[in-house]
Amino acid sequence: MKKNTSQKLWGGRFEGATAASVEAFTESISYDRRLYSYDIMGSKAHATMLAANDLLTAEELSAIIDGLSDIETAIDNGEFSFKSELEDIHMNIEKALIDAIGPAGAKLHSARSRNDQIALDLRLYLRDQCDRFVVLLENIRRAFVGLARRYMGQVMPGYTHMQRAQPVLIAHHMMAYYEMFGRDSERIADCRKRINVLPLGAAAMAGTGLPIDREMVAGLLGFDRVTANSMDTSGDRDFAIEFVSCCTMIQLHLSRLSEELVLWSSQEFSFVSIADKFCTGSSIMPQKKNPDIPELIRGKSGRVVGSLMSLITLMKGLPLTYNRDLQEDKEPVFDAVDTVSASLAIMAEMLGNLEFNTRRMREATRTGFMTATDLADYLVLHDVPFREAHGIVGRAVATCIEKGCELTDLTLSEMRDFSPVIDEDVFDVLSVEGSVNSRVSTGGTATLRVEEAVQAAEKQMGIGE
Amino acid sequence: MKKNTSQKLWGGRFEGATAASVEAFTESISYDRRLYSYDIMGSKAHATMLAANDLLTAEELSAIIDGLSDIETAIDNGEFSFKSELEDIHMNIEKALIDAIGPAGAKLHSARSRNDQIALDLRLYLRDQCDRFVVLLENIRRAFVGLARRYMGQVMPGYTHMQRAQPVLIAHHMMAYYEMFGRDSERIADCRKRINVLPLGAAAMAGTGLPIDREMVAGLLGFDRVTANSMDTSGDRDFAIEFVSCCTMIQLHLSRLSEELVLWSSQEFSFVSIADKFCTGSSIMPQKKNPDIPELIRGKSGRVVGSLMSLITLMKGLPLTYNRDLQEDKEPVFDAVDTVSASLAIMAEMLGNLEFNTRRMREATRTGFMTATDLADYLVLHDVPFREAHGIVGRAVATCIEKGCELTDLTLSEMRDFSPVIDEDVFDVLSVEGSVNSRVSTGGTATLRVEEAVQAAEKQMGIGE
Amino acid sequence: MKKNTSQKLWGGRFEGATAASVEAFTESISYDRRLYSYDIMGSKAHATMLAANDLLTAEELSAIIDGLSDIETAIDNGEFSFKSELEDIHMNIEKALIDAIGPAGAKLHSARSRNDQIALDLRLYLRDQCDRFVVLLENIRRAFVGLARRYMGQVMPGYTHMQRAQPVLIAHHMMAYYEMFGRDSERIADCRKRINVLPLGAAAMAGTGLPIDREMVAGLLGFDRVTANSMDTSGDRDFAIEFVSCCTMIQLHLSRLSEELVLWSSQEFSFVSIADKFCTGSSIMPQKKNPDIPELIRGKSGRVVGSLMSLITLMKGLPLTYNRDLQEDKEPVFDAVDTVSASLAIMAEMLGNLEFNTRRMREATRTGFMTATDLADYLVLHDVPFREAHGIVGRAVATCIEKGCELTDLTLSEMRDFSPVIDEDVFDVLSVEGSVNSRVSTGGTATLRVEEAVQAAEKQMGIGE
Amino acid sequence: MKKNTSQKLWGGRFEGATAASVEAFTESISYDRRLYSYDIMGSKAHATMLAANDLLTAEELSAIIDGLSDIETAIDNGEFSFKSELEDIHMNIEKALIDAIGPAGAKLHSARSRNDQIALDLRLYLRDQCDRFVVLLENIRRAFVGLARRYMGQVMPGYTHMQRAQPVLIAHHMMAYYEMFGRDSERIADCRKRINVLPLGAAAMAGTGLPIDREMVAGLLGFDRVTANSMDTSGDRDFAIEFVSCCTMIQLHLSRLSEELVLWSSQEFSFVSIADKFCTGSSIMPQKKNPDIPELIRGKSGRVVGSLMSLITLMKGLPLTYNRDLQEDKEPVFDAVDTVSASLAIMAEMLGNLEFNTRRMREATRTGFMTATDLADYLVLHDVPFREAHGIVGRAVATCIEKGCELTDLTLSEMRDFSPVIDEDVFDVLSVEGSVNSRVSTGGTATLRVEEAVQAAEKQMGIGE
Repeated sequence: MKKNTSQKLWGGRFEGATAASVEAFTESISYDRRLYSYDIMGSKAHATMLAANDLLTAEELSAIIDGLSDIETAIDNGEFSFKSELEDIHMNIEKALIDAIGPAGAKLHSARSRNDQIALDLRLYLRDQCDRFVVLLENIRRAFVGLARRYMGQVMPGYTHMQRAQPVLIAHHMMAYYEMFGRDSERIADCRKRINVLPLGAAAMAGTGLPIDREMVAGLLGFDRVTANSMDTSGDRDFAIEFVSCCTMIQLHLSRLSEELVLWSSQEFSFVSIADKFCTGSSIMPQKKNPDIPELIRGKSGRVVGSLMSLITLMKGLPLTYNRDLQEDKEPVFDAVDTVSASLAIMAEMLGNLEFNTRRMREATRTGFMTATDLADYLVLHDVPFREAHGIVGRAVATCIEKGCELTDLTLSEMRDFSPVIDEDVFDVLSVEGSVNSRVSTGGTATLRVEEAVQAAEKQMGIGE
Repeated sequence: MKKNTSQKLWGGRFEGATAASVEAFTESISYDRRLYSYDIMGSKAHATMLAANDLLTAEELSAIIDGLSDIETAIDNGEFSFKSELEDIHMNIEKALIDAIGPAGAKLHSARSRNDQIALDLRLYLRDQCDRFVVLLENIRRAFVGLARRYMGQVMPGYTHMQRAQPVLIAHHMMAYYEMFGRDSERIADCRKRINVLPLGAAAMAGTGLPIDREMVAGLLGFDRVTANSMDTSGDRDFAIEFVSCCTMIQLHLSRLSEELVLWSSQEFSFVSIADKFCTGSSIMPQKKNPDIPELIRGKSGRVVGSLMSLITLMKGLPLTYNRDLQEDKEPVFDAVDTVSASLAIMAEMLGNLEFNTRRMREATRTGFMTATDLADYLVLHDVPFREAHGIVGRAVATCIEKGCELTDLTLSEMRDFSPVIDEDVFDVLSVEGSVNSRVSTGGTATLRVEEAVQAAEKQMGIGE
Repeated sequence: MKKNTSQKLWGGRFEGATAASVEAFTESISYDRRLYSYDIMGSKAHATMLAANDLLTAEELSAIIDGLSDIETAIDNGEFSFKSELEDIHMNIEKALIDAIGPAGAKLHSARSRNDQIALDLRLYLRDQCDRFVVLLENIRRAFVGLARRYMGQVMPGYTHMQRAQPVLIAHHMMAYYEMFGRDSERIADCRKRINVLPLGAAAMAGTGLPIDREMVAGLLGFDRVTANSMDTSGDRDFAIEFVSCCTMIQLHLSRLSEELVLWSSQEFSFVSIADKFCTGSSIMPQKKNPDIPELIRGKSGRVVGSLMSLITLMKGLPLTYNRDLQEDKEPVFDAVDTVSASLAIMAEMLGNLEFNTRRMREATRTGFMTATDLADYLVLHDVPFREAHGIVGRAVATCIEKGCELTDLTLSEMRDFSPVIDEDVFDVLSVEGSVNSRVSTGGTATLRVEEAVQAAEKQMGIGE
Repeated sequence: MKKNTSQKLWGGRFEGATAASVEAFTESISYDRRLYSYDIMGSKAHATMLAANDLLTAEELSAIIDGLSDIETAIDNGEFSFKSELEDIHMNIEKALIDAIGPAGAKLHSARSRNDQIALDLRLYLRDQCDRFVVLLENIRRAFVGLARRYMGQVMPGYTHMQRAQPVLIAHHMMAYYEMFGRDSERIADCRKRINVLPLGAAAMAGTGLPIDREMVAGLLGFDRVTANSMDTSGDRDFAIEFVSCCTMIQLHLSRLSEELVLWSSQEFSFVSIADKFCTGSSIMPQKKNPDIPELIRGKSGRVVGSLMSLITLMKGLPLTYNRDLQEDKEPVFDAVDTVSASLAIMAEMLGNLEFNTRRMREATRTGFMTATDLADYLVLHDVPFREAHGIVGRAVATCIEKGCELTDLTLSEMRDFSPVIDEDVFDVLSVEGSVNSRVSTGGTATLRVEEAVQAAEKQMGIGE
């Protein structure tokens, strides 16, 4: 009879030890250890099911549950010694269990494979992350609602093409982000539906002939349902890609917010002041106070996109089912989770330490012909076709630029040179406050509308209750 | 009074014409003309609402509706002359309308901006694409169900790491793809919810002071609701990124399928034969018959990923609200739509023209110790702990390799040298058919389970009714 | 004897026609026609070599050369009818040649394959693009030198973290871009070395047994050398990826410049005025003048990155040698070429139409403690350790912020409270001009240094000769 | 006088401490510590230059040099305590130096900034990596030359479209990779030219007024030249992107090689056997031996692409000069370096432990009409136009397929039915060895050519000397 010289749990057919360089190259325990509590949770449920189907005795089950609990405690306390020659979190825990409780431990891996086990761990982990992200997103949304409430009624320039376009409420601008992060929350919820499906029981990729009860395991672990095809299950990382896509969208939103905060912190804008404790200085220029947090968050959009791209490249052209390439799924997922969650948390904290320079923002609305559209709308309401009205106002603006004045500096008579329908009431229309509060269309910037939106948000977020 | 010399509809304040190089660089009509029917549909609804709110007379509305219909017909028939100096689809149509019906046409752009108009067009377009994609996905899923039905009961090797692992049913493998494309369908449906929200009425980005009724427009155009914040609306392309993310996932699935088809078409596998009409030859090697379709589809995964990265890069760090950068959203979206829909369609067609070489596939299951796991499970059922059983079988396999035989070639006595619990009934377990049909766990490859899955799919797809 | 029913040039072994949907899906003539002149150039060289090696007679060569010239003229004049059933540019031209000159045309494809032919066409095309890009890069660099010369001596704030940091010369800032695009030029030159290698003669992928002379073809077409391994040659697209990497870097540089131009065009900065003919207006806001060109160029960085990612994804995991996937290389390459070259050209043109608002820029240097580093350096020169000096100045700045003044507003006595080494001459150091001109380190912003840099650049660019 | 309460080296103007969450979010010491030896090397050169320019006394210089050496030793020995509140490697070392040697240490940061310091560290690091990569690439190229030498003369099928195309030498296939990794080496060398430029002296971004000598520092550190523009220098990461682009290309090459090794290891191909010590087993299937190394390397192409994408996204749209976003440059660079260098090393090691199954490879060339092109070339040499010859052979192949035989199974008389020019000598042409050795074109697969190529490579690599 052939003797094997491999010490691996899978080494029955192997001659000779794995090369040390190969162990170092292939191990994943240095990063998948993060999944230990999910691995143990899954193993407990699996064992419970095995026992219910007579593949374990009650004593064996009890030994396994206790053994796993001990291992979890050891890891919690940093007293567990991870070994890279045991490759991954599954083998590290299984080996420790066998060492601790003997033969019963060696029965745990019945009717499963690392292929379905890692899918289980990752799904449990990401399900938790979904729930955590929803909270983080809620927190940042609360911060926007808080700012909107605090600065309700204050005006600022609204920009398109980074050019002053129309005056808006600061609160309206804040609520735009409330909406954006709200969509992120919805996407996470949709993604969670596809995460929350039990893969265990696919075994290597063909299912198993041992008498198992996947529905029972699903119930124990809180999964909505079980996967329908074992081959699909084994090679599926759609849920990870979808989750990181959601992460990318969140970080893109954060990058846009960051860009605005960086701009608003510049001396040229001076719209906002970030508390000292959220800024750093320069090693050479003593006067500097830099908006490091939003800069870093903006920069970190690169790394989240990189994680997404990693996963996509990874999956391109892989035949079914499990291929070892899939081991490379975890680090991008972890990095995306860490980056986005840290960015959301610190941004929410920083938003609570933001001061808007409302005087400066208000002043900025006084120039740049920001109520020109209102004048055009005024003409429309006096039955001038819009396209003609637009031309009239364009010419008025050009005249003002030539004169170096604003529209409000023109006399009524000068105004009427542009269009005879203009009357005294035009000056109400041209005022910044008049302009803002006229925009009562659904979703518009009128205080009336924004107040409604903020109240609805406060109610949804349970603020002020 | 200042004279403007620009001929643009927006040129009131401008001196001098736009440089020709600038017109060429900034125009979008060469590609956004694709949106014409959506632009016209949106304009009709907008006009209907304007009339209902006394911003147009009944006569004006009627003229606009008729004028727009005439323009649509002209474009349908290739008789419309698009002008790049009119920049985009909106201005081309508006100008044609004004030329055709006079002042009434000049009223159409009241209370809207190209910023919300393009968002509307793109959402209407993508909503249609969602519906079309669901059909395309259904078609390809039907093709898999068809293959599963046709080859029901036939076996093939299941692979992990591209190594023969366990025997499976061809039908089971096909149904894995059925599941994958099914998830794609779900994602498209979720994405559609976020697409189907009316942006019109955000105007430039602050809403409008003209008396409009966004809910009415939403109703006319079949939107579920209206966007909640005008600034968000104006700069939001989340829905486009999400849609292209869904496209990327579909194409990744197609790339995996294509990889398998290319491999299976090789002389080494010879598992599948693609009909001549789906292959091409070589300009130099007269004997070649190449699986071009799956190769191209696999290659096209690059271009869909490229589109996704384009959109993500585009949005990174953009301040709110509309920036001209956003014009660059359309071509990647269009390219992703075209690539994925064409790939889905031709793949579905080709799947219907596929012949599996069942004899060869069956033979391939006879070697490679593919039922080794079954032997391990057999030992488990005889109360050998799994990890020990795994080691026993590993040694048996190593012995067979040394001898140059398969497990089934061992005598019972040789078998029992490895473990005394082994008995005569082991040979049933080691047979390929026995192995396959033993895997009755939910989602497993047993004929019983696969037949259930195929029947359920046939029912869902309305096949054979 | 078997009859084939395919009409394809490669159809000898095929039964039945290619499906129409397959022809539509697989054709490349709709975009590779762009390569026609390179294809013909390569065919002429190939034919010349074949004749020199007795594979063509002198008469046949002459007929081929004339026939190809006629085809080129026809294509030049738009009188050539491309057929998608002939798949690609190679087959379209070869078929037209055979139709025109008969059997001699049918000899042209001896000793070559479309696999090496397309590699040849693409290399010839990209070699030309390298040369064109060098000119485009030179033009934009001239534009920066021109601006540097024009605004020589004028100051502006230099920023780090978008915070005013130290005063610099506008010319110095412009010359930073001169350097950046200079590196791009070097990279293109390095890339060209790897493009300019003859692939023809690799044939399908194994070389050929027909007596050919690759070195002769290389000489005729101006290649530096011939590729060394036929299998490598057939599946190599490194040169295309490297070229598009260079494109990406250029577009990234353009995106940074664009970001600055957009910011500088804002009312808040008002540093720059872009000529009307390079801007567009708003369809709704009559006062708007938008910096569309830099916005679009910034946005187009997405599409160049997308092209790079397309190519990278395409090549991932492809076995050697030629796979049909490679057909997908062309469109990303073409799009990157078009996008980057158009962006470079219009940006260079626009830079020539830029007006800096020097008064405003100068004023912006007066606040923000921009010479604080100079004060620290002053202390260093008076033997205060830098780190201590940095602290002293930091406290002085904090005091000024509290007082609402600048460092120059402090009296000497107040100054000396911070450090006794400070004397009357400190006020020279604190002046913006003093600060700028003190930075005479190599590569520094002192007028002396910048003037040297500009003169060197003018000499290199041949300006003012 | 204002008191600052910040303990930071840059904290002069700051009130209040940095928030702990901010310190955690912004620190880079957890990863940039990797640069410590470069940071110290740079500081020593900087100090030497400062002393030469009277900004340090000889005693101060000596204290600094010794102090830095002590710190380096401490870090080497793992006895240095990195503090995240000191943010980065620069501040950690500077603070330790000041603590150790007092005021002299506080002078070290004169005339420099962290902005140019980190650029220096990164350039020094990447220059070393370039040199290391050249060696790693040489090692893997040696491995291919070794395989080529070992299997010289042995045949295998050459594939296009994964279809057997023409017979080639195994050695020829190996030498294709020799070429590919050779190009990678050239690209690294070109990249190194642009890395090896001294950034130090750019200071914050405007240069410095202190009397420094950048050329001296460049000389001390082995740089070819100094950067020409301080603003460019401060915000330039082109060299990092270019380096990671080179990394991406290497990993793409590795992914293609890995794909082939995975395929060749499958039971269907059985072309190659990877030593047990380079494979791992399955936790469930006892018979499995998986090609984990190439699978992981193929998967890791995703992470290198991700790093490239991170850097590109990072730089998109950043205004000049230094922005804190740039801190995010390091982790992708480090990860790309680690991934690619580990992959190159283990692959080279594994290639040395590879056994080709030459019998099986040879057999695989006997079927699939692999010498059909040779027959076409035979006809061409008998003056049949190539296109006609191609058709003739195509029909012959179709006939053989119908008959279920190979071309060599036809009789001369059957052959002559296809073309009367065919004679007895055709059978030499149709033999695999005859085919291979006929391809004597430069770069072709004839033993003569491949032997030349291998000898040239052996000479270049110094093998067998």
